[in-house]
Amino acid sequence: MDKKTLPISQTHSMRIWTHEGDFHEERPVSSEVPVVFEYNCVTFAVMMATPADLTDYAYGFSYTEGIIQKPDDIIYSQIKIVPKGTVAALEITAKAFHRLETYNRTLAGRTGCGLCGVERLDQAIRPLKKVTSELKVQAELIHASMEDIKSVQKLNSETGALHAAAFVNGQGKIIALREDIGRHNALDKLIGHLLREKIDASAGYVLITSRCSFEMVQKCAIAGIPLIAAVSATTDLAIKLADEASITLIAFTRKEGLNIVIDPEQRVI
Amino acid sequence: MDKKTLPISQTHSMRIWTHEGDFHEERPVSSEVPVVFEYNCVTFAVMMATPADLTDYAYGFSYTEGIIQKPDDIIYSQIKIVPKGTVAALEITAKAFHRLETYNRTLAGRTGCGLCGVERLDQAIRPLKKVTSELKVQAELIHASMEDIKSVQKLNSETGALHAAAFVNGQGKIIALREDIGRHNALDKLIGHLLREKIDASAGYVLITSRCSFEMVQKCAIAGIPLIAAVSATTDLAIKLADEASITLIAFTRKEGLNIVIDPEQRVI
Repeated sequence: MDKKTLPISQTHSMRIWTHEGDFHEERPVSSEVPVVFEYNCVTFAVMMATPADLTDYAYGFSYTEGIIQKPDDIIYSQIKIVPKGTVAALEITAKAFHRLETYNRTLAGRTGCGLCGVERLDQAIRPLKKVTSELKVQAELIHASMEDIKSVQKLNSETGALHAAAFVNGQGKIIALREDIGRHNALDKLIGHLLREKIDASAGYVLITSRCSFEMVQKCAIAGIPLIAAVSATTDLAIKLADEASITLIAFTRKEGLNIVIDPEQRVI
Repeated sequence: MDKKTLPISQTHSMRIWTHEGDFHEERPVSSEVPVVFEYNCVTFAVMMATPADLTDYAYGFSYTEGIIQKPDDIIYSQIKIVPKGTVAALEITAKAFHRLETYNRTLAGRTGCGLCGVERLDQAIRPLKKVTSELKVQAELIHASMEDIKSVQKLNSETGALHAAAFVNGQGKIIALREDIGRHNALDKLIGHLLREKIDASAGYVLITSRCSFEMVQKCAIAGIPLIAAVSATTDLAIKLADEASITLIAFTRKEGLNIVIDPEQRVI
């Protein structure tokens, strides 16, 4: 539904310095655009994102922020390119819009990001439902799926600038991957895709090519994803939330192995 | 002024899986806490951050968000540990508070983060003043200073979870470094330190151990920092802003060399 497609990357002429000498070269650079979220013609937030899979992003963001509770809460969505950026114009049900007004921007927290309008610490960390899932998966399979991720990261291979979030089924097969300059956005895009395609989030797990801070766990809990494996580190608060939400949390999924930080339901076999 | 100090890392018992077998081990994990920003007793935002150098963070955040224009705009600051998190209680001048009310949460955009309350795209990308500086620095010196950064990253060496932002003088010597789970926070902490210590930001450059998206450039422009060297990639919007603000932008500062993406004032010699 995009009016036109924005470039995901452009080339830029730059000077490359090495110990052996200097040269000039055209190198690809990722695009970054402001995306305005409008619900029923009211502006909610402006996010910086990579201009790819923006409809998935709109669904995922609306869902993990608690604005919609199911895909049908969005009646109509349109990604509009305007001179100064991009507008995700969403028409949501009256019930969802009422919820939005009540919330009044209790935007969930993320590392380095404001919990906009949250007036109290109580609201900063929302209570999470426990994720229910029958998933059992071998550590070796999780490790192997992270090795596979590079071959699916199409956008990143060009510029080296993008994070990815992938959904993997119980057999270790990557069935969807989304990319973005921001790790939160990549996960929101992936969750939006699962939601739109009615893919059962509880039947698989998520790989992220970044660190796993508390908000990444929060998003997965809301989406009902039972296991997160991150390339990088995690935090004490992420562990606490994963424990509360019955989510398995794996860190440092790298060449040498992986750290099963917390596994309250013993999903890793 | 901290009432008590929060732990920056804790150990957590976890299962380590490798191809050679499994074992359990206590490993250090970084702390992550919600920090509420209160100006003259009014809550402004809640940010997720690493509980270290929070006074620097309070000054830097207030400055790069445009709430204060000089350190003296903060009359009194206190970091309070409360049961559910941390409060940065700041008393600012009447003039600064009036500015804050006028702004009404035009929180600057960051990748994956809402520009809270910004009602129009016009406001998303604030116009930046040109940075004036006499800085001239050799590419080799910048490259060498990034090699030095690891030895100064005290917190990260323990958990591998933290980003760093360092300020380096014209002779390539790291004179300050701040760390955080969030790259925006690390830079805000560094800028807060420069501000509090009245260090001339135009006389040196900044190293960041992350990617450089548009908001990282925005923060440096506001702080008057003439050159940013990032370990990872940059974006088209970051380049555009760097050009407008006369900031030199370097990406992929790694073992093999570095990419001088844009250098409008020819500061790299």
